[in-house]
Amino acid sequence: MTSMRGAATSTSPMADILADESRSVDAVEHCLARIDERDDTIKAWAYLDPELALAQAAARDSERRRSPLHGIPFGLKDIIETGDQPTAYGSDLWEGHRPAADAEVVRRLRRDGAVIMGKTTTTEFATYRPAETRNPHNTDHTPGGSSSGSAAAVADGQVPLALGTQTAGSVLRPGSFCGVFTLKPTYGRWPFDGVLPVALTFDTVGAFARHPAWLGAIDESLSTAGDFPPVTTVLPALNTLRVGVLRPPWADRATPAAAALLEEFVAGLAGFVSDTIDVHVPADLADLDDAHTLLMAAEASAALAGRLRGRPEGSPSAQLTSFLESGREAPASSIQHARTVLRRSRSVTDRAFDDVDLLVTLAASGEAPEIGSGTGDPVFNKFASVSGCPAVGLPAGRGEHGMPLGIQLVAPPHADQSLVRIATCLTDRAGLTAKLGVQEGDKDDR
Amino acid sequence: MTSMRGAATSTSPMADILADESRSVDAVEHCLARIDERDDTIKAWAYLDPELALAQAAARDSERRRSPLHGIPFGLKDIIETGDQPTAYGSDLWEGHRPAADAEVVRRLRRDGAVIMGKTTTTEFATYRPAETRNPHNTDHTPGGSSSGSAAAVADGQVPLALGTQTAGSVLRPGSFCGVFTLKPTYGRWPFDGVLPVALTFDTVGAFARHPAWLGAIDESLSTAGDFPPVTTVLPALNTLRVGVLRPPWADRATPAAAALLEEFVAGLAGFVSDTIDVHVPADLADLDDAHTLLMAAEASAALAGRLRGRPEGSPSAQLTSFLESGREAPASSIQHARTVLRRSRSVTDRAFDDVDLLVTLAASGEAPEIGSGTGDPVFNKFASVSGCPAVGLPAGRGEHGMPLGIQLVAPPHADQSLVRIATCLTDRAGLTAKLGVQEGDKDDR
Repeated sequence: MTSMRGAATSTSPMADILADESRSVDAVEHCLARIDERDDTIKAWAYLDPELALAQAAARDSERRRSPLHGIPFGLKDIIETGDQPTAYGSDLWEGHRPAADAEVVRRLRRDGAVIMGKTTTTEFATYRPAETRNPHNTDHTPGGSSSGSAAAVADGQVPLALGTQTAGSVLRPGSFCGVFTLKPTYGRWPFDGVLPVALTFDTVGAFARHPAWLGAIDESLSTAGDFPPVTTVLPALNTLRVGVLRPPWADRATPAAAALLEEFVAGLAGFVSDTIDVHVPADLADLDDAHTLLMAAEASAALAGRLRGRPEGSPSAQLTSFLESGREAPASSIQHARTVLRRSRSVTDRAFDDVDLLVTLAASGEAPEIGSGTGDPVFNKFASVSGCPAVGLPAGRGEHGMPLGIQLVAPPHADQSLVRIATCLTDRAGLTAKLGVQEGDKDDR
Repeated sequence: MTSMRGAATSTSPMADILADESRSVDAVEHCLARIDERDDTIKAWAYLDPELALAQAAARDSERRRSPLHGIPFGLKDIIETGDQPTAYGSDLWEGHRPAADAEVVRRLRRDGAVIMGKTTTTEFATYRPAETRNPHNTDHTPGGSSSGSAAAVADGQVPLALGTQTAGSVLRPGSFCGVFTLKPTYGRWPFDGVLPVALTFDTVGAFARHPAWLGAIDESLSTAGDFPPVTTVLPALNTLRVGVLRPPWADRATPAAAALLEEFVAGLAGFVSDTIDVHVPADLADLDDAHTLLMAAEASAALAGRLRGRPEGSPSAQLTSFLESGREAPASSIQHARTVLRRSRSVTDRAFDDVDLLVTLAASGEAPEIGSGTGDPVFNKFASVSGCPAVGLPAGRGEHGMPLGIQLVAPPHADQSLVRIATCLTDRAGLTAKLGVQEGDKDDR
């Protein structure tokens, strides 16, 4: 169980596990024991076949190590198709559905030796109707969505790594609510083939981990196709970094504790970087949230149409039906306005990186809401989802109710590896991130 | 018939017509006579009801003048819905279809006193299958598409003004092939409500005229909603203008005569403006053409799905079916790549305007192809369609086969009025545009 204990306790588990000789079977058994103990409470899994996971682990243990991910168990959001496990897209209509093949990201993970532990819960078709999953920090609260199970399972120590997807804020926000590290990579950097498209203009596979260094290993795997290494933008060293603090029109949607945490983080950061300067987002981009929602609805109404047809044994939720209708019925001039707002927003982000190397903002507007009031507000996530810039989420503190709060760092396109390196420095050297162990019912080694 | 003669012969018909006291009924009768003479040859009209046009003209003649467009006849591409005339979208499936209401651009034209003369031909659903329309300069050649009838009717003196739409190059290209002035306004500036959506990310209503000043009057009408005047970006005076000459990776797709015309135009322009400098488009944006086509196909497959369903009395062309399939079946990673190319292209255009006020390039790759080989290559039109920047097309000379060649000016968003003013200066003062009268069978007053 060394590798899992490493992942949960060391300040740099990556280094531990890279040097680790422990068996994948031990890691999977550790995960299964934790899941066994906690699944009734947290409900993070849509599908889990212990024998299949153990068989993969045993096969990996019998082989030469292929990559840093070799033998490491992954949870996969249940809109990422798997050829050997069902994929139900968070919809009753597709319960038990067996895709023909693995999504391309799954194929790359397996190529590099990862173990596909199981499928994690998602909201309905990765939109709004919540899964049954609970936040491991306080089970009266949502883990966030739509990648609910991936965030909760990683936070709860049920699996060290997981993939989710982000169209609005579905990776960074649940990561923030659950107190784990996240990466939404550069748009298009990780392939979306074989993942349920919701709005392909924004859809991005992302990752969850308990230490940022893992995010770099996952990026290396998922951005490498054949012999082609990924494009790379290199950011300067930490002490020469110019950091922009995003001052958006939606800043007032942060809770007081979240707003205070941001200032505290920036104050701490100032001691390690070359400069921190305010980057003001023009007031007319206040429409960005609504513009994104409208275009997501318009694209989703087309993208999901096929999945909703010819499935007599169920019906989508009323909320989804009305969301898709809002997209289908949107007047052309509303679409035109929304697209114009998005273009301006991309241009503003683009130009911000003329003056700074990195942008910092909140990863969510505050703590996870209580169960029953949705999966939280993605407003702070949208500018990175719209611009396609890579974003890393860092756990950074706790709010009024003792739940996690997170910070988000956003970098120019394809600076993913540099961004992860900076996040690792801020965690291991600067100590600016917080280690937010699960407090309630957390009987493991943290 | 004074107003029509003015439009066809004066170097500044706008001034003539603004001061004109002649009757709308005379203008419509002039158009009807020309159509009567030429329609068997040119076939520019999908629907024309002479009585309805004359009734509108008579009503306008009995009223106080509402705008410079008062009483002026317009042709409307037959994907722009009209409540009083059928709209068939260039598809046999929709022959005789009667929309419930006018498109918003039609409502605004009528508000300002324009006469809706009739509906002009379009390719099938504004995509590829050509209409029967011929190029008035040489009827063995295409007028271009998809706004085929609007370009041909204006060029042939059958109507002074017309609207079309551009998703790839469907306004500027037919305008260039037919030797008329065109405006594709800033994306979102003119409402698309009530127009057939093909790919709303790009879809833009545009205009055709025989003198650029008219384009300004049309923009004033169509960009004004209620009491809200349009946003305005003002460009400097002609003699202080910095002009960028676009040097794209697709430059080699121009014919020798078109390439020579561009250099000649730029040399002439240099005498009137402050500076002309080359603006090189990065080589990796060579994919822009394919990226645009793929996203257009993907969006069209969703946008047109409803129009193709439940119409048992016909079927779409094999070409359209296979085009839509290419969009529907596109792998997610191809869509991701295409969206990335488009974003880069927008960013390049955006930044080009840091150094120049205006960009100049060809309006089409050369002369109109012969009938039977499609409606021409839109490659030179795509960067403005993708960026959403306003573009004006100017007739500027003739090619190897005596057919028109055109130049395109592209300005920053919402500089539409300034762009038209510059085009007017280049026409009336600099004499840089060419007056390309229809040569064959043109018996009217040119």
